[in-house]
Amino acid sequence: MARWEPDARGRLTRAALELYAERGFDQTTAAEIAQRAGVTERTYFRHFADKREVLFASSTDLQDTVVRAIAAAPPSMSPIETVGTAMEVAESVLQDRRDHARRRAAVIAANPSLRERELLKLATLAGAAAEALRRRGVADPAAALAAETGVTVFKIGFDRWIDDKSTAGLAECIRKALDELRALTAAA
Amino acid sequence: MARWEPDARGRLTRAALELYAERGFDQTTAAEIAQRAGVTERTYFRHFADKREVLFASSTDLQDTVVRAIAAAPPSMSPIETVGTAMEVAESVLQDRRDHARRRAAVIAANPSLRERELLKLATLAGAAAEALRRRGVADPAAALAAETGVTVFKIGFDRWIDDKSTAGLAECIRKALDELRALTAAA
Repeated sequence: MARWEPDARGRLTRAALELYAERGFDQTTAAEIAQRAGVTERTYFRHFADKREVLFASSTDLQDTVVRAIAAAPPSMSPIETVGTAMEVAESVLQDRRDHARRRAAVIAANPSLRERELLKLATLAGAAAEALRRRGVADPAAALAAETGVTVFKIGFDRWIDDKSTAGLAECIRKALDELRALTAAA
Repeated sequence: MARWEPDARGRLTRAALELYAERGFDQTTAAEIAQRAGVTERTYFRHFADKREVLFASSTDLQDTVVRAIAAAPPSMSPIETVGTAMEVAESVLQDRRDHARRRAAVIAANPSLRERELLKLATLAGAAAEALRRRGVADPAAALAAETGVTVFKIGFDRWIDDKSTAGLAECIRKALDELRALTAAA
C-alpha cells in the first residue's frame, strides 16, 4: 500500500458500502467510490479487480485463518470438529465488524450478481478447507462433506450473528449451528 | 413453445454446450448458438435471459421436483431424511443425461461466471427446500440447516455420479453421501 494513501483499502471498502447502500450497486461507479474515498480510480483498480470485489476484502484473511486453524488442530480431532472449530476462529477476523457485516449483507441480498460473488467466495472457502483436511490425511468424500458442512454452519451462524438482537458472538453462533446440525443428522 | 420450432429449447441447450466446449464460453455468442440450433437469435432470448441460463434449463424442473417431494413426504419423517429423500428424486429429472451432465460440468468448471451462476441455482434450490420444510412445520434454524445439508449431499452425490466409472445411479450416490455425512457428524 502506498504511503501517501493511508488505509486506502479500508477507505474504499467503507465508501463502496455507503454508496451501494445509498444509490444501489448498479447505480454506483468505481470512479465515484474512489472519489468518496479520496483516491484515484487507478488506485481503486490497484486494490480491487472489479466493483464487486470491494465487498469481499476480508475473504482472503478469513480463508487463510480457517486453513491455518485446520492445519493446527490436534491430529486426533475428527474432521467435522476440526472444520467447525476452524470456522469459529473466523470470529477473530470479523468480530469488530458486526454493524459493517449487517449493512454489507443487506447490500448483497439486494443484488443477484453480488449474491453470486458471495457464493463463489464461500465455495472457494469450502474448497480450501477440504484441501486443508486432505493434507491432514482425511480422504474424500469425508474431506469435501466436512468442509461443505463447515461452510453451512458458518453461513447459518453468521446470519444469526448479524440478525441477532442478543449479544452472542460469532463463534458462539457457529458452534450452536453445528450442535443443531449434529442433532438433526443423528439417526432417528 | 412455438409449433414451427419443435424442441427449440432442447436444441439450444445442446448447441450451447457443444459450442462452449469447442470454443469456450467467452468466445461464443447467443447468435452463434441460435444459428447452430437452427433458430433465430430472438428465439434464443425468448427461451433464455442470457448466455449462462441456457446451461441451467433443468434447474426449475429439479427444484419443483424437490419441493413436491418434500411436501409429499410422510409427516413423521425427520427434516434431514425428508430433504435427503427429496434430493434422491432428482434422479427422475437427470437420470438419462449423465453424459450431458458430465460435459456440462466440465464447461462450468472452466468459467468462474458459470460457476457463480451454478452456485446461485443451488442456493435458490436450498432456499426453496427450506421454505418447503417450513410449510411442514419445521422451524428455523432446522429448516435452513437441513436444506443446506440436502444441497451438500446432492452436490457431492452428483459429482460422484458424473465422475464414477461404476454404474451407480444418481439417487444411490446421493444416499451414500447422506449416509457418510451422518457418520461424520455422529458425536465421537
